[in-house]
Amino acid sequence: MDVLKKMIVEKGIVKGKDVLKVDSFLNHQLDVDLLDKIGEEFYRRFKEDGITKILTIEASGIAIAVMTARYFKVPVVFAKKSRSKNVDASAYTAKVISFTRGTEVDIIVSDKYLSKDDTVLILDDFLAKGNALDGLMEIVEKSGAKIAGAGIAIEKGFDEGGKRIRQKGVKVESLAIVKSMDENGIVFAE
Amino acid sequence: MDVLKKMIVEKGIVKGKDVLKVDSFLNHQLDVDLLDKIGEEFYRRFKEDGITKILTIEASGIAIAVMTARYFKVPVVFAKKSRSKNVDASAYTAKVISFTRGTEVDIIVSDKYLSKDDTVLILDDFLAKGNALDGLMEIVEKSGAKIAGAGIAIEKGFDEGGKRIRQKGVKVESLAIVKSMDENGIVFAE
Repeated sequence: MDVLKKMIVEKGIVKGKDVLKVDSFLNHQLDVDLLDKIGEEFYRRFKEDGITKILTIEASGIAIAVMTARYFKVPVVFAKKSRSKNVDASAYTAKVISFTRGTEVDIIVSDKYLSKDDTVLILDDFLAKGNALDGLMEIVEKSGAKIAGAGIAIEKGFDEGGKRIRQKGVKVESLAIVKSMDENGIVFAE
Repeated sequence: MDVLKKMIVEKGIVKGKDVLKVDSFLNHQLDVDLLDKIGEEFYRRFKEDGITKILTIEASGIAIAVMTARYFKVPVVFAKKSRSKNVDASAYTAKVISFTRGTEVDIIVSDKYLSKDDTVLILDDFLAKGNALDGLMEIVEKSGAKIAGAGIAIEKGFDEGGKRIRQKGVKVESLAIVKSMDENGIVFAE
């Protein structure tokens, strides 16, 4: 997706070989016009897959999920991190290690919002080792719903998550796959 | 805003006299069509105020902020809770007590995304004691930006936050103000 790759090159900040900061348009400040184009592109790639629900994880995934859900006309469900007193005890849970925070968190989805009748599109901003995606897939499996696939804005193609999860037979569509990066620039996989 | 009040009455769950769960459409599962109408209504109420940026707080505010920003055609900035290694040290911070989690957290906005040239609309899903809104206003003040006002989906009118913050001269627009609630029902203020 050229508009996203262009934005990454122009506004992304590479730190070392594995941190790509896209705070200025994707996960702190949000470029709503770009998010709309991302949503439209995910719709193009998954519109034939019978999606009934979009699942993501707080916080960075929410904006992408909502802007995509406008095209699908389905509800978004976002997994919450750690248990708060406003989440029911009857819930699907999974453990996820956060790349940015370096800690393990429980992610939680109420059993009211996913069921065996759902076909779920999982969306997230980044895919690297695939921890968040593993956790979200575990939750969908526990609910009995069908996983239609995963839509990712930026995949770190040099990390193993994408390859590993595609090998399970999951349809993973990433809009920008970073093959390598350092202070001198970013190389995309395609 | 009648469509929101109707949804609260039909799908909200009241626990005791101060917990209103709107998980099924506003802050766990998200009704994107409702969010779009909320965005349109905030635009109607603030379109003359020269908004250049929308500020909210993760996680529940993000969906409302993004859907509202589509109308204003301005970026969203969401304050992050607690410091992660992907947030710069040069940042505006404030302390906020979370109603749902019962703990104090630091909220953080990078100094790159708010400046004295901005006129900011603050958006959030709930207003009760006003702790989150206080924190967000503190951040805007630290940045030197102008506060145009605050747009709130659901205000707990029986709590003191709305009255206290309006008395400071801040334009606070709440789409549904709950005057009182218990297991028997919800009474709106207007």
